[in-house]
Amino acid sequence: MRGAAKTIEARLRELGVELPAAIAPIANYVPFVRTGSLLIISGQLPLDNGKLPDTFKGKLGKNVFNEAGQQAARLAAINVLAQAQVALGDLGRVRRVLRLGGFINATPGFIALPAVMNGASDLMVQVFGDHGRHARTTVGVAELPLDAAVEIEAMIEFE
Amino acid sequence: MRGAAKTIEARLRELGVELPAAIAPIANYVPFVRTGSLLIISGQLPLDNGKLPDTFKGKLGKNVFNEAGQQAARLAAINVLAQAQVALGDLGRVRRVLRLGGFINATPGFIALPAVMNGASDLMVQVFGDHGRHARTTVGVAELPLDAAVEIEAMIEFE
Amino acid sequence: MRGAAKTIEARLRELGVELPAAIAPIANYVPFVRTGSLLIISGQLPLDNGKLPDTFKGKLGKNVFNEAGQQAARLAAINVLAQAQVALGDLGRVRRVLRLGGFINATPGFIALPAVMNGASDLMVQVFGDHGRHARTTVGVAELPLDAAVEIEAMIEFE
Repeated sequence: MRGAAKTIEARLRELGVELPAAIAPIANYVPFVRTGSLLIISGQLPLDNGKLPDTFKGKLGKNVFNEAGQQAARLAAINVLAQAQVALGDLGRVRRVLRLGGFINATPGFIALPAVMNGASDLMVQVFGDHGRHARTTVGVAELPLDAAVEIEAMIEFE
Repeated sequence: MRGAAKTIEARLRELGVELPAAIAPIANYVPFVRTGSLLIISGQLPLDNGKLPDTFKGKLGKNVFNEAGQQAARLAAINVLAQAQVALGDLGRVRRVLRLGGFINATPGFIALPAVMNGASDLMVQVFGDHGRHARTTVGVAELPLDAAVEIEAMIEFE
Repeated sequence: MRGAAKTIEARLRELGVELPAAIAPIANYVPFVRTGSLLIISGQLPLDNGKLPDTFKGKLGKNVFNEAGQQAARLAAINVLAQAQVALGDLGRVRRVLRLGGFINATPGFIALPAVMNGASDLMVQVFGDHGRHARTTVGVAELPLDAAVEIEAMIEFE
């Protein structure tokens, strides 16, 4: 997809997605690493301007509405893209989104996990088309950093 | 292992394993991606003919018996193989099962997680011999899609 | 980092870290696999001489203190290094710690997950310097094998 940078930027604009500043980790790790043509991105939270919106705080099945969960997944995926932008300089270098790992902060009993995760998956396909179609694993976990509703990690193939 | 296809097919027959139709994801993601010689398979559930058997629904430590959990792990692993069959055309192209990620739907306090996961690991070794010996990570999660007892993702090296 | 073996050994001594014997899995899987220049290490528990210390048993937010959790993460990371030592023969062959996956055995509501995981991340940077800086994903899970407080998996690039 080299040379597709303009298309991706245009696509993001169409979608009304403005990439935020990539979020700096607050500990001894990095937001991404590259090995060969693989870009591995650390788990991203649905932070907005570095803050966790109240609506994205807590558990699905308890105090986070399903639609808010989906929006949280979308925002976490946008933060994944912000990291990829820094890592690659140009999202047009993304050849394929290989895998998303979706961790949903959920009560035991909340089974609409895939619908929440779709917020992230849909964004990837909206931005990259078929190159955005990825393998994914979605699970409901007991807790997440900051009590965020969603955490999303990614593996991306680039050129 | 090219040319070993017959052996794998014969091995599956011996084990009484009939590969089901690969399960289509119901959202904007794909059941597998390939990058280089790596095949990455999305988290698979213990679905039988597209349905989750009642015995594989719910939590270990609560309403799913340990032996049923093990069978669920085995069935999820069979669904992994069904995806690999579609991805590679021929399971004889599997050079090595690299990694299984096992997510067990469990109550806090249910610690027999590895025994449950063995249902998946044993199958891989039964089918591929030493090439089926994989790295793995097993954790107990708060909830899984459809309230399935087990979800298993895989990374496979192929030729 | 070839030729850096002495440095790594010296660094471990300085840190007072004695690599334990690598822990053998008790089932049909292996502690690590290699593919190309990637080393994938199975989820490691904070075992000491093959046993889980009482202080590292249970849940953060309930019966494991935060500092003990951090020490558990450090010990699990030391067990990761012990596996890498066996896999590579020489930790000087580690080119980059690519990714750590941190699973914390936590009660719903325990959000200091990153601080616990820092026990593992800090060790990697202490041992390998900038080559130890990794991508990571940290989540709180419902349960772990043996009721261990922490489980850590790794992906390492080697030469």
